Amino acid sequence: MSLPSKENFSEWFHEIIQNAEIMDVRYPVKGLYVWFPFGFKLRQLVYSKLREIMDREHHEVYFPALIPETELGKESEHIRGFEDEVYWITHGGLSPLEVKLALRPTSETAMYPMFKVWIRTHSDLPLRVYQIVNTFRYETKHTRPLIRLREITSFKEAHTAHRNYEEAEEQVRKAIGYYKEFYDFLAIPYMVIRRPDWDKFPGAVYTIAFDTIMPDGRSLQIGTVHHLGENFARTFEIKYEALDGNHYFVHQTCYGISERCIASLISIHGDDLGLVLPFEVAPIQIVVIPILYKGKEERVLEFAKELIEKLKGFRVVFDTGEDRPGAKYYKWELKGVPLRFEIGPKEAERREVIVSFRDERKKFSIPIEEIDEKKIKLWGDEMRDRLRKKAVEAILAKIKFVKEISELSENVKNFVVIMHLCKSKNCGEEIENFGGKLLGWLEEIPDFIDHSAEGKCIVCGDKGFLAVSARSY
Amino acid sequence: MSLPSKENFSEWFHEIIQNAEIMDVRYPVKGLYVWFPFGFKLRQLVYSKLREIMDREHHEVYFPALIPETELGKESEHIRGFEDEVYWITHGGLSPLEVKLALRPTSETAMYPMFKVWIRTHSDLPLRVYQIVNTFRYETKHTRPLIRLREITSFKEAHTAHRNYEEAEEQVRKAIGYYKEFYDFLAIPYMVIRRPDWDKFPGAVYTIAFDTIMPDGRSLQIGTVHHLGENFARTFEIKYEALDGNHYFVHQTCYGISERCIASLISIHGDDLGLVLPFEVAPIQIVVIPILYKGKEERVLEFAKELIEKLKGFRVVFDTGEDRPGAKYYKWELKGVPLRFEIGPKEAERREVIVSFRDERKKFSIPIEEIDEKKIKLWGDEMRDRLRKKAVEAILAKIKFVKEISELSENVKNFVVIMHLCKSKNCGEEIENFGGKLLGWLEEIPDFIDHSAEGKCIVCGDKGFLAVSARSY
Repeated sequence: MSLPSKENFSEWFHEIIQNAEIMDVRYPVKGLYVWFPFGFKLRQLVYSKLREIMDREHHEVYFPALIPETELGKESEHIRGFEDEVYWITHGGLSPLEVKLALRPTSETAMYPMFKVWIRTHSDLPLRVYQIVNTFRYETKHTRPLIRLREITSFKEAHTAHRNYEEAEEQVRKAIGYYKEFYDFLAIPYMVIRRPDWDKFPGAVYTIAFDTIMPDGRSLQIGTVHHLGENFARTFEIKYEALDGNHYFVHQTCYGISERCIASLISIHGDDLGLVLPFEVAPIQIVVIPILYKGKEERVLEFAKELIEKLKGFRVVFDTGEDRPGAKYYKWELKGVPLRFEIGPKEAERREVIVSFRDERKKFSIPIEEIDEKKIKLWGDEMRDRLRKKAVEAILAKIKFVKEISELSENVKNFVVIMHLCKSKNCGEEIENFGGKLLGWLEEIPDFIDHSAEGKCIVCGDKGFLAVSARSY
Repeated sequence: MSLPSKENFSEWFHEIIQNAEIMDVRYPVKGLYVWFPFGFKLRQLVYSKLREIMDREHHEVYFPALIPETELGKESEHIRGFEDEVYWITHGGLSPLEVKLALRPTSETAMYPMFKVWIRTHSDLPLRVYQIVNTFRYETKHTRPLIRLREITSFKEAHTAHRNYEEAEEQVRKAIGYYKEFYDFLAIPYMVIRRPDWDKFPGAVYTIAFDTIMPDGRSLQIGTVHHLGENFARTFEIKYEALDGNHYFVHQTCYGISERCIASLISIHGDDLGLVLPFEVAPIQIVVIPILYKGKEERVLEFAKELIEKLKGFRVVFDTGEDRPGAKYYKWELKGVPLRFEIGPKEAERREVIVSFRDERKKFSIPIEEIDEKKIKLWGDEMRDRLRKKAVEAILAKIKFVKEISELSENVKNFVVIMHLCKSKNCGEEIENFGGKLLGWLEEIPDFIDHSAEGKCIVCGDKGFLAVSARSY
């Protein structure tokens, strides 16, 4: 079962998800998938980093998955944004329910009625909680594992409340910082983009998104941060008593990351041979393969054990199976194991180890004495730097900077287009007429983009800012 | 807000869940509750032990929460057992679904269609997976946090497949062993009881349950282990190719524990002042309270910091707040903090620490030099032994051994009744006519019960075995 070339990204993605045992796509309902043990372990490792970051200033909680229609419908823009894709529970057993229950598409309307009772005075603020939960969307578009799902199994959603607009805005900044740290850890390049006002989260004042670019040149939203202002606070009557004795509405933010983080991890780093995983999140970090020849097994195995003794604290497989070495290489490359150590009779004799990194696939030998925890961690760090560099190159090849509107139509089909654009809805819609979606304006200019922040709007000639248009997932 | 006496168990339980910040009961749907940060932390600590035990020979996975009606209905006994309490999703957005989706009440019918494709030959067996997920029941009875829920937020369900009946039975034995280890760790006494054939899990060959006894004398089922035989394998066509080249149905088991483990933990160890938590699972293990007098603060705080330095690796709160010491004691006792250290000017001078254990509440002083990691762990272990001893005493006071059927009616109202009973349905029903539910027969005789395993059935006089009848949750 070899993979299709990554050039055929859609097929490659479908096959790698199944063959590398991330998810089983054979579950008998469209848009629902099963996490294999290997995929689940990867998920755990990635999300434990996310938890570590969140735990610094958020408390983890759990709110119910079922939201009564009466609460979900309270914030009018919010419900309008979700009504086409909410799953409704209408029956319990054989009886119709008095109040229909929505399966949470996101948890604002589950949490905020409780925020109302939790928040009394300024000393209860800031309130910062998060949860990692399953959420549900009735997707009618083409579904794909990890990317477009009917059950999002791993939605990390954080919700905060503050005394005023500025403090909520400061939280938005912090959230962006947390997400940057998370994606830098995964060596995933991203653009931080402010969504157009007409495409923000339903109920938000503004939305800032993290978008990356997939190998087929389409953009993938891998995180969002919303400033909610007082919008939900007014609907759910969330007020606090200030030092001056008056009662004010809180200002809120929310921000989320789903298993799309794993979709981007797999898609951006993977190659024609399979997964390529950063060292820290690889379910198997090191595979040790003994090359056995009749009569010399003992010496090799003994030396291998000496090596394995040095690898304590890492996630190691010692593959003594009966497959040929080539079959073993194939198998562990598919699973994205970052480090491969081989030992044959010659190595055992010389007290050397053959080392191969999953991303470079070159082999070299080093004395066993030089292998220790520090060295391995260094290799892991170096590999992350290489992965990030390679990912940036791949993304740059998918980006085109466009100076004139006339260049748009030919480029928008194959590239993520960057241009200067004013913030008017008119000019935004004009851009979308060429195909592609206006993702919005760069909130920060990433290190891999070196165009000036300001310039003339390519539509109307007024003052414009760096904007991004893309075919998006 | 002081608690009602634990004598009024139902009120006490309701209040402690809310006041100790385990769950917020104010969510606007019956039977759904919110995990507070403190409760969630307790949940994490308890479940990380459960994960540690499971990970020894199971792989963690995740299957979808939505099960199509066509799969859920395949095993006829199974669906009959669940049809009254399944939540049905009938609409996606504004459109009716073609096939109704059930919110998983348990995951046999989600998993086993996949087991069919996962299992090919004997070398794929045994297969052992587990997941920790939310499951749903449309409960029409009186709901209670952690005990009877519409969303069970934390259902650990394990599912295994084996070559034959005996190997599946061996897994049943192992599962019982795992659950014993888990509840021993929590210092919760339990009875391992084989359910009557007419009260087993729908679709099982037999069911073995873990039951404990709550402070009001009612039994609580806190775990179940089912031998499924070939029942589901025949329905879902799960076969493997054996060494002899023939294809056989697999034999299966499944076993589960829900957040009722936390209900039992709170109920059995708690007292009139609040939670009493075993050291290993307490979200806060140690509170250090400085007793400050004007002019002597510095010396006390300095000494306290020296103490805290020694407590690295434990979950410690250093309470320098402005409340009076009494208010602090009250607060941390409510939260079940196992160890309290106090330091006043006298202690700072003598280089001593006042120690108090949450369960005993006696105070004693010891030199700071004697406090180290080993000592603290020893105290934790001793506390667990005391908790278990006290819990056994409490449970024994709720149990009555009955020799004659005439003694039943007076005892069944106030006690868990143990008696000798044959295995006929007739005699079982006769017993239930007196009130109370026949939980079944003791599979193993716990160390706190010293009646002989066999005796005359109190109904018919035939050979009987130790059976348990109780009012149950």
